Amino acid sequence: MAEEVVLLDLWVSPYAARVKIALAEKGIEYESREEDLSNKSSLLLEMNPVYKKVPVLIHKGKPISESRIIVQYIDELWNHKSPLLPSDPYARAHARFWADFVDQKASPSLNLLLHYSSSESREAAEKELIEDFKVMEGELGKKPYFGGETFGFVDIAFIPSYRYYYGHETLGNFNLVEELPKLAAWVKRCLQRESVSKSLHDPNKVYEFISELRKKRGLE
Amino acid sequence: MAEEVVLLDLWVSPYAARVKIALAEKGIEYESREEDLSNKSSLLLEMNPVYKKVPVLIHKGKPISESRIIVQYIDELWNHKSPLLPSDPYARAHARFWADFVDQKASPSLNLLLHYSSSESREAAEKELIEDFKVMEGELGKKPYFGGETFGFVDIAFIPSYRYYYGHETLGNFNLVEELPKLAAWVKRCLQRESVSKSLHDPNKVYEFISELRKKRGLE
Repeated sequence: MAEEVVLLDLWVSPYAARVKIALAEKGIEYESREEDLSNKSSLLLEMNPVYKKVPVLIHKGKPISESRIIVQYIDELWNHKSPLLPSDPYARAHARFWADFVDQKASPSLNLLLHYSSSESREAAEKELIEDFKVMEGELGKKPYFGGETFGFVDIAFIPSYRYYYGHETLGNFNLVEELPKLAAWVKRCLQRESVSKSLHDPNKVYEFISELRKKRGLE
Repeated sequence: MAEEVVLLDLWVSPYAARVKIALAEKGIEYESREEDLSNKSSLLLEMNPVYKKVPVLIHKGKPISESRIIVQYIDELWNHKSPLLPSDPYARAHARFWADFVDQKASPSLNLLLHYSSSESREAAEKELIEDFKVMEGELGKKPYFGGETFGFVDIAFIPSYRYYYGHETLGNFNLVEELPKLAAWVKRCLQRESVSKSLHDPNKVYEFISELRKKRGLE
């Protein structure tokens, strides 16, 4: 492997999926090393001593952590094809704002939904999630992708959440297509891209994983 | 003002201070509009409808929110002088990681310290803050600035926290110079820059503000 690209990976992580989608968009080959979070590899501890989390991209022996930072690195380094961030500084700031919104708002809401312990807390978490998703739908507007005509940084940040969402949709009492039709169409559009479909696992498998996790935590 | 740069500002905000330092480093003139957080301006609500928070940079009528995103925008747009982020993609990713660490770890620790309600919670918050600051000191190492020889993105992200820290140092039982000598030298070095000294307020005034805030919240 000429480029020596290694990804410290976890199949179910939406953050690792971002990196896989970005690498696929750029056509970069890499070696995926699946981590066991209950027994983290010494390589992970060495490469990400601050957070000890996946994903970590190791490029020519040097580590990069934090998924949005990794995706920007991939975009800046392999800039020969498929630009993920726009070239205009204002449009770049706009894209960074919405990718950041996914992590500040939508992802914590999803996480809350994963850990609910009563029907009240589930309903509150569902409500918050739908509100955040509605804000995202407002930003999408009539565009095919968040980046406009082309699939880009915000799409990559947001699409992996969908498979988590699927699990919650089954656990919960709401329907993506009915509540958020534009977002549902966007999800379908994204899944038609090979970079996305090959980087995301079967939603049923993710749902099983979430259910198992809830059982282990005594939440079922 | 040819460039039409307006900053929705708050004198005590470490996030607004980042933007002021970046603009000063680039030599960009701007109009500062002080916000009253108990009575937010309609301009703030219009320009940052998602978070309704300062700072917002309005450039030629278009808003940019979130301080780290604003600083990157300033750096990318006014790239004629004082580069804040390095040009090498790996070094850029490294700088983004540490600026992100300030917001993920050091700032929440500072915030915790602002809201402690008992001597136990104060001690725990102090301990966490010092641990985070020690990680930052480890990253600084023997370099004059986080960016190496030149003042840059991570320095801008971290230095405004110092004036908050001063307040907590007076409230708390620890001493920056004794605990973290390298960081103390870095703080002194940063304060010698006009861009920093003119963007940060008198620590005593900040301390008074924090004390008042604690009283209002019944924490004194």
